[in-house]
Amino acid sequence: MNTKYNVLKFILNKFEKVEDLVSIEEPLEISLKFKKDDKWITQNLSVTMRTPGHDKDLVRGFLFNEQIVQDILDIDSIESYGEKVGQYNIQNKILATLNNSRNVNISKIKREFLTNSSCGVCGKSSLDALEVIKNDKTNPDEPKITKEVIIASSNTLKSNQSEFIKTGGIHASGLLNSLGELINLKEDVGRHNALDKLIGSALINGQIEPQNQFITCSGRLNFELVQKVLMTNIGIMVGVGAPTSLAIDLANKFDMTLIGFVKKDSFNVYTNNKKVIVD
Amino acid sequence: MNTKYNVLKFILNKFEKVEDLVSIEEPLEISLKFKKDDKWITQNLSVTMRTPGHDKDLVRGFLFNEQIVQDILDIDSIESYGEKVGQYNIQNKILATLNNSRNVNISKIKREFLTNSSCGVCGKSSLDALEVIKNDKTNPDEPKITKEVIIASSNTLKSNQSEFIKTGGIHASGLLNSLGELINLKEDVGRHNALDKLIGSALINGQIEPQNQFITCSGRLNFELVQKVLMTNIGIMVGVGAPTSLAIDLANKFDMTLIGFVKKDSFNVYTNNKKVIVD
Repeated sequence: MNTKYNVLKFILNKFEKVEDLVSIEEPLEISLKFKKDDKWITQNLSVTMRTPGHDKDLVRGFLFNEQIVQDILDIDSIESYGEKVGQYNIQNKILATLNNSRNVNISKIKREFLTNSSCGVCGKSSLDALEVIKNDKTNPDEPKITKEVIIASSNTLKSNQSEFIKTGGIHASGLLNSLGELINLKEDVGRHNALDKLIGSALINGQIEPQNQFITCSGRLNFELVQKVLMTNIGIMVGVGAPTSLAIDLANKFDMTLIGFVKKDSFNVYTNNKKVIVD
Repeated sequence: MNTKYNVLKFILNKFEKVEDLVSIEEPLEISLKFKKDDKWITQNLSVTMRTPGHDKDLVRGFLFNEQIVQDILDIDSIESYGEKVGQYNIQNKILATLNNSRNVNISKIKREFLTNSSCGVCGKSSLDALEVIKNDKTNPDEPKITKEVIIASSNTLKSNQSEFIKTGGIHASGLLNSLGELINLKEDVGRHNALDKLIGSALINGQIEPQNQFITCSGRLNFELVQKVLMTNIGIMVGVGAPTSLAIDLANKFDMTLIGFVKKDSFNVYTNNKKVIVD
């Protein structure tokens, strides 16, 4: 599933307004219904950020791969439920009912998923959850950065990574000022970890100055990464890869300028282009 | 942090044995110590798969970005603890102690992290956890695939993706037979979701035949993705990107053939090259 967004595109040395197709990212809340000591129990199991479509296969694979079921036939039914929500008018809740001959060890499930949280977004089901903890938007107008700074930032990131050149397999996040100078950079095999390390380090060193900074990430831009940057009040985020629909919607809601697909002579501004100098 | 592995590399139309640097991936168990009603409580908060190094910054950023603390100064101390484990001789447990003037709503923490599990790996702290639920290795010798099939598989994936060509921002996982013919393919903004969808769909359609199949993924190969494929007993996994150390170690333990960095005329075999036809 994908959707159209209006984008300010820089290409062939000029800016133009175009439409761009973006992959949809939406939360899916997975619940499990199973028998325990001859009683039926329904339990919330997981929230995952997924592209809608093949949701039942997703739940089947998840339950099997996590060994909540050992056999796919242990699942009696999988049904989406609840009202259709959001701009795509889809159900974001799904219930898997296990075969009634199967008893599940509920304490095992509870224990396994209690210690789970490497992904910052998992516990939040929608944009609304974030709004509860974050009231202030980013500055809608400042700082401003040039196209040259945007394009150079991706190289700055790569040329300052100590690990990427060796292994070719590590993500990075960088804190830069609006002139494009690197202030801090951290690497990790996990994108969310690289960003957590960067923000943690910048906070303890007193380096965060939202009025004068932006953050650049390797890879794609999803809801979780935008959410983490918003916590610092930094209002410009640049990525080498594609953004998801929810990343764009979240950035938009907080006046963040979200820039993706940064190449050596082109990029896309997905939200609030007031912070990009266009001449 | 990175480490060396012996790799069978196909390049310039021949195989050669080389050493390759790989980014390290290791679990980190994050616990939180805080005061609640004048009593000190220590609680396991999260297990994340990270590259060792800057662990304290990772915890700072995580606690701040998840709004477990609103101010970085609410954290009194962060200390690694426990014995040094594994081949890299590092501590994989870390404890953050909150300022004793700060009371935390423990029910909020419990609730938030109870519903968390989009990442299959989060609940498992090491390779050992997986061995408990999976006793059988994959077939160490079969199926065998040719270099042509390996190289073509990445194109097969891309040319059969309905979404990638439109958005440039979506991952895919494909089930192929040992001749390189595509059996099933699923897409998602999340790599783990694409693989869950593929395996869920293949299981319900009775398509899984480990003796004759392999799985190809876009992007990088981490512990979590290898773990999901192992659940199907499919013993060859191919990826366009780099593997992590833990992905290699896990594949090795179960006799899986793990192949990464697949380009148009080269690739690396990281484990068990008996399933790759080298002449």
